[in-house]
Amino acid sequence: MTLIECVPNFSEGRRREVVDEITAAIAAVDGAHVLDVQSDAVHNRSVVTFVGEARAAAEAAFRGIAAAARLIDLNVHRGAHPRFGAADVVPFVPLKAAELGICVMAASELAARVGRELEMPVYLYEESARRPERRNLADVRSGEFEGLRETIGTDPARRPDEGPARIHPTAGAVAIGARPPLIAYNVDLASDDVDLAKAIAAEIRERDGGLPKLKAIGLAIDGGVQVSMNLTDYRVTSLTTAFAAVRSRAGVRGVDVRASEVVGLVPVEALAEVARAALQAPRLGVANVLESRVLDVVMEVRDE
Amino acid sequence: MTLIECVPNFSEGRRREVVDEITAAIAAVDGAHVLDVQSDAVHNRSVVTFVGEARAAAEAAFRGIAAAARLIDLNVHRGAHPRFGAADVVPFVPLKAAELGICVMAASELAARVGRELEMPVYLYEESARRPERRNLADVRSGEFEGLRETIGTDPARRPDEGPARIHPTAGAVAIGARPPLIAYNVDLASDDVDLAKAIAAEIRERDGGLPKLKAIGLAIDGGVQVSMNLTDYRVTSLTTAFAAVRSRAGVRGVDVRASEVVGLVPVEALAEVARAALQAPRLGVANVLESRVLDVVMEVRDE
Repeated sequence: MTLIECVPNFSEGRRREVVDEITAAIAAVDGAHVLDVQSDAVHNRSVVTFVGEARAAAEAAFRGIAAAARLIDLNVHRGAHPRFGAADVVPFVPLKAAELGICVMAASELAARVGRELEMPVYLYEESARRPERRNLADVRSGEFEGLRETIGTDPARRPDEGPARIHPTAGAVAIGARPPLIAYNVDLASDDVDLAKAIAAEIRERDGGLPKLKAIGLAIDGGVQVSMNLTDYRVTSLTTAFAAVRSRAGVRGVDVRASEVVGLVPVEALAEVARAALQAPRLGVANVLESRVLDVVMEVRDE
Repeated sequence: MTLIECVPNFSEGRRREVVDEITAAIAAVDGAHVLDVQSDAVHNRSVVTFVGEARAAAEAAFRGIAAAARLIDLNVHRGAHPRFGAADVVPFVPLKAAELGICVMAASELAARVGRELEMPVYLYEESARRPERRNLADVRSGEFEGLRETIGTDPARRPDEGPARIHPTAGAVAIGARPPLIAYNVDLASDDVDLAKAIAAEIRERDGGLPKLKAIGLAIDGGVQVSMNLTDYRVTSLTTAFAAVRSRAGVRGVDVRASEVVGLVPVEALAEVARAALQAPRLGVANVLESRVLDVVMEVRDE
């Protein structure tokens, strides 16, 4: 038995009953287990995290997308986060790196089904991208709902990978794909200079020639400033490396790190990496983690 | 559903077929999952790690003890490690700290059954101890098989907690108990001076006034020296603290740490603690670990 994770983002973060109904549609699928639901009113967006075997996960994702399409109207949706669909983005994430292929297959099958049964344009992104220019979600979503609505029927570059070449009138479009786990990681600095946080973010992020697989922005937060990061492949740029990069760049400016925070769920391997570095313990890994081993045997038993 | 861990130590580390037969007796119990088997020829001792619900774990432990009693004769056993029984020590360990009580109960019921059905003297130790002087396993086992055989019938201090007040003629005695997870942790030093490793061990271990819940010895190993530790409660003295203690004491003598190693299985919480310290991330914990959350939901599902 192989569990995969699915982390759909829905364009609703204010109406609790809508988020609850979408989540309930997902949780109703036998073998799909909801781990977490996070709603953000400013972004007007919610993120549901669930796991299941590929078949159950794809079924649950389909039902979540269908519920969102029924309950959310993009024509009246406003929020700080870019979006082009009611079910805006549906990534499948392997629990083990070797199982990325299972996620690619689940994404591909779901995309075809959503296009066919929900008559929604579907874009395959990241590891599932069928065109290199669709690997990056921001590029796929450019122009958002309002922009795509204008161009989807006429611009060949906007032609969807699955489903009709016309926008769904209320639910927009959906990006579906497989990707490695993404780690949201913030480092708070003992400073109130937001330009400092922005400067450090610019120095370390991939886009500006910094660390690979690292996105970063500088923000003012309650009581200070923060370098807010996404590690899009922690095996390439790890938590240890990201933390050290911020700390050293703050340090040369005479500013201390106040604290850091991992937001949401991370694979145990990402913590093992931190421990490996901190303890100079090169052989330390998930094979040493009791809960990982227990999960493995519990999954094996279910196969029997 | 609540899984607990059981880590019985058997007095056989050379005859592979004997270890296999004991392990097979454990694994044959429905709901008992063997995670690991480690045999040491010098110690002439094997450690089996398995998990199961309390009832299955106790049944599997019973069958392991019975198999060891059938297959091992202490009268001809020689090895570097102290021992007083064929199944020498049988600890139950909670996967979550809050479940230590379940382990105490499992140990207590198993002890009564072993005493009654296998006619073996049983000593309850650590959290299961009924006398304070039996908390420490080394005290319980003092004199080993040969010593206990002489005194068990006459010395009230050696009277077992369960079973007959006479040694089992071939299988000796058994210590059963509940305890927190124990972490075996070694730090290698860039030195060939074993006295240095011994001196550092003496400075940091609880017995000599050092860190609480830390045992340590200094050893010569292939290509260097090592401080070899047992963390008997990592929530009291953590991996981070143990590593820093060795490194700082080596550092003042001008010696570097070469590497460290976690031996066997550790709870994910122990790695989260290292990451929390290394990343200055005070809120980082097992709730952030994907596999922990998945294990929780999988266990919940089994309860339904």
